[in-house]
Amino acid sequence: MIQTKVKTAVKEPKITLVGAGPGDAELITLKAIKALKSANVVLYDALVNEDLLDFAPKNATRVFVGKRSGDHSYSQDAVNKLMIDYALNYGHVVRLKGGDPFVFGRGYEELDFAASYSIAAEVIPGISSSIAVPGLQGIPVTHRGLSESFWVVTGTTASGSISEDLYQAAKSRATVVVLMGIKRLAEIAEIFKAEGKHRLPVAVIQSGSMENEKLVVATVDTIVEAADDQGIDSPAIIVFGDVVGLHPLFQPIRAFYEFAE
Amino acid sequence: MIQTKVKTAVKEPKITLVGAGPGDAELITLKAIKALKSANVVLYDALVNEDLLDFAPKNATRVFVGKRSGDHSYSQDAVNKLMIDYALNYGHVVRLKGGDPFVFGRGYEELDFAASYSIAAEVIPGISSSIAVPGLQGIPVTHRGLSESFWVVTGTTASGSISEDLYQAAKSRATVVVLMGIKRLAEIAEIFKAEGKHRLPVAVIQSGSMENEKLVVATVDTIVEAADDQGIDSPAIIVFGDVVGLHPLFQPIRAFYEFAE
Repeated sequence: MIQTKVKTAVKEPKITLVGAGPGDAELITLKAIKALKSANVVLYDALVNEDLLDFAPKNATRVFVGKRSGDHSYSQDAVNKLMIDYALNYGHVVRLKGGDPFVFGRGYEELDFAASYSIAAEVIPGISSSIAVPGLQGIPVTHRGLSESFWVVTGTTASGSISEDLYQAAKSRATVVVLMGIKRLAEIAEIFKAEGKHRLPVAVIQSGSMENEKLVVATVDTIVEAADDQGIDSPAIIVFGDVVGLHPLFQPIRAFYEFAE
Repeated sequence: MIQTKVKTAVKEPKITLVGAGPGDAELITLKAIKALKSANVVLYDALVNEDLLDFAPKNATRVFVGKRSGDHSYSQDAVNKLMIDYALNYGHVVRLKGGDPFVFGRGYEELDFAASYSIAAEVIPGISSSIAVPGLQGIPVTHRGLSESFWVVTGTTASGSISEDLYQAAKSRATVVVLMGIKRLAEIAEIFKAEGKHRLPVAVIQSGSMENEKLVVATVDTIVEAADDQGIDSPAIIVFGDVVGLHPLFQPIRAFYEFAE
């Protein structure tokens, strides 16, 4: 009997938004791996570790839809359409996004778009860099006696201006984590200076969780110069708060101020 | 030649603080599994899914150190000491904590205690329920046009009073996520009412990511009654913000208010 390869029928369209975590490929969840293993197509962003694509079947289609400075990039609208097209024609689309899909990831827009086509969609949370990147440096976003809350703000709003929320955050006692704000570090530091928080500890962490990670610790007054000295560039997160003062690199800075007084 | 089993020498003391995620055992990271596989001892909390203990070697010691209402529970001081004792006597201690170790987990205190004994310690971030539990319900903590930031606050401070940060959060435009606050839901709702936010959408999610998960969606004015009706109990998180209004269960509530006007 001669066996012929039968082309598999197109599977039920399905979309899974998956958080890929902050960068380190081991910071992916089991649930995310399971989704990748059953993917027919993976649409992935710039900040996703490409090693994760190896979890998808060999014959799965892999499409880079991220933004890298200078490169051609897909608009959100194009990504949405691509996601639907692939789901209708190939079956299970895994939309692999850096961090968590709902932390400034425009994940809800994609979920909503899928729903408008009545395509089943699921969300698998990821490790958000907002908590994990300081955490991996031993900086806790909360700590008894120092911080009873943390506030995560984007440095880049849809309109291009600094978020009004950041002005409020600078007035608060919360640990303030700014994502996608490194290009505007000087402007953001000014907001904290305007609140008289000149000596508040600040950390800037570039490529957190990756081998090429860079950390700079300073005060509001000195962070811009310190980050420049270290040649910090995006992707990077900024953390404002007394919890940053727990980091060993902050101890000489504290000693300097105490000596100067 | 006769081979005799040689007792393995005590390994280098080492402590790994591991985030176990919100409850669903599949929301654990590869890095966490790797740590568990090399554990000699696992100290785990009440909110940790016990299925995760299966990743540890069969002969590893498993110690429950969590707090469950009514049961005997270890003080933080006792947990710290136990962690050191086990590390010195058995080698690699995995301290498995619900969510992320640094989100109200007192993780830094444990890290600091390990450092005071010069024991090597590492942190492996976990999926925090603050982002993931709303996310799994399709509620994004951030969404263009609705929320440019999210603020995570504890409902239970060291002093037992409501955190001052929660009063500030209620004034803000941020999505406000309250952890460990369900027992004080009525008091917390009053804080938002005092800001005139009577109709702000609120979600209460009990046992998020688990099979026995419960969700209640209402407004600030109606959430206490709605949560009572559903018999909501801890562990539960509370989410205040327009993003909650995106949930399908909120649509009839919105329609009711629109009809009433």
